[in-house]
Amino acid sequence: MKIVTAKKILVANDQIASRNRDRFNRAGVLTVNIVGSPGCGKTTLLEALFAKLGGRVAPAVIEGDLASSIDAERIERLGIPVVQINTMGACHLDASMVAEAVEGIPLDHVKVLVIENVGNLVCTAGFDLGEHLRVVILSVSEGDDKVAKYPTIFRKSDVLVITKTDVLPNSNFQVDRVKEDLRRLAPNARVFLVSALADQGVDELADWIVESAATPR
Amino acid sequence: MKIVTAKKILVANDQIASRNRDRFNRAGVLTVNIVGSPGCGKTTLLEALFAKLGGRVAPAVIEGDLASSIDAERIERLGIPVVQINTMGACHLDASMVAEAVEGIPLDHVKVLVIENVGNLVCTAGFDLGEHLRVVILSVSEGDDKVAKYPTIFRKSDVLVITKTDVLPNSNFQVDRVKEDLRRLAPNARVFLVSALADQGVDELADWIVESAATPR
Repeated sequence: MKIVTAKKILVANDQIASRNRDRFNRAGVLTVNIVGSPGCGKTTLLEALFAKLGGRVAPAVIEGDLASSIDAERIERLGIPVVQINTMGACHLDASMVAEAVEGIPLDHVKVLVIENVGNLVCTAGFDLGEHLRVVILSVSEGDDKVAKYPTIFRKSDVLVITKTDVLPNSNFQVDRVKEDLRRLAPNARVFLVSALADQGVDELADWIVESAATPR
Repeated sequence: MKIVTAKKILVANDQIASRNRDRFNRAGVLTVNIVGSPGCGKTTLLEALFAKLGGRVAPAVIEGDLASSIDAERIERLGIPVVQINTMGACHLDASMVAEAVEGIPLDHVKVLVIENVGNLVCTAGFDLGEHLRVVILSVSEGDDKVAKYPTIFRKSDVLVITKTDVLPNSNFQVDRVKEDLRRLAPNARVFLVSALADQGVDELADWIVESAATPR
């Protein structure tokens, strides 16, 4: 496992993001940027998702965290190529960190590259990493008012995955409220409801990933 | 309810924070800065806590959110003075926003001012608001690896409140792991375990607030 430490950003982020995207396109790799609050279930969702891909597409992961390599170790245990970025306190990944981390990914053998951003429902919204799709995660535990309270990140995402749906019966979380708030901000965003624990909705999400990877870019 | 929109920071944050603290000291008001992830249960904890104060100290609240006045409306329903700050996308409160918001708080009639920061486990760590105590919230739902993964904010807090302890029996969250990680970062930090839903540990936290408000500063 490679561990990259964040350096000062010297070139404008968008320019580097475009270069990253060109590189992913040349390699035929679909890149997905996963954003969401700390503890919303990003890594757990990836673990469940990868078990469902069944060899249909080869995944790799870039993990972003302030400190530690806890998440990368979880992915490495699955035998999936992974690079850990430690941002040394920075609140989001940027395109230059991803450009450096990609050096540790065997792109020729990969079809889907998942970038798990720092747990942050605010700052990750402002930085294009060169991804093709941005997926925002909201766990049922966080409450159904989060789309209204943190609109920017939901407006800038292609897909919303509502996680931990197994606790829905014991909560006052209203999926319809979330969908309605999202429709105002991102009318074309797709919504998936998933419980990694109860194995609900993971197949649908895996199928969508496989389809998206096969779509010409 | 007053709604304040964030303006450009023109004076260094720490200088304004010191001025805020002087003002709170002159008024004899204990000020507590509450930080934590989106959906960790900050507002719900305040609702439970205020019900337990029983007139022993008079509270007031400053609510920080990117958008909306959802949280301030919840506090207002309790008949407690509240000012909503909308940061217009900014990822944390700063001392100048608080200085402006305080104009809407009747400090002469208040003993404890709670500032509920933007839901963000990273960026809120770097900004002194002029508070006396910083309380970081971690919900059981977020997982027990968060102290290791987001060390800065835990290092800079005086108190850790672990919320949603009612779901502990159904989770693999290890309180001891969190306490051990915290001990390395902030050996003097106090830890409270609380469930607002099950009314566990709220009395202890309320007593601590009352004691802290009575401690000379």
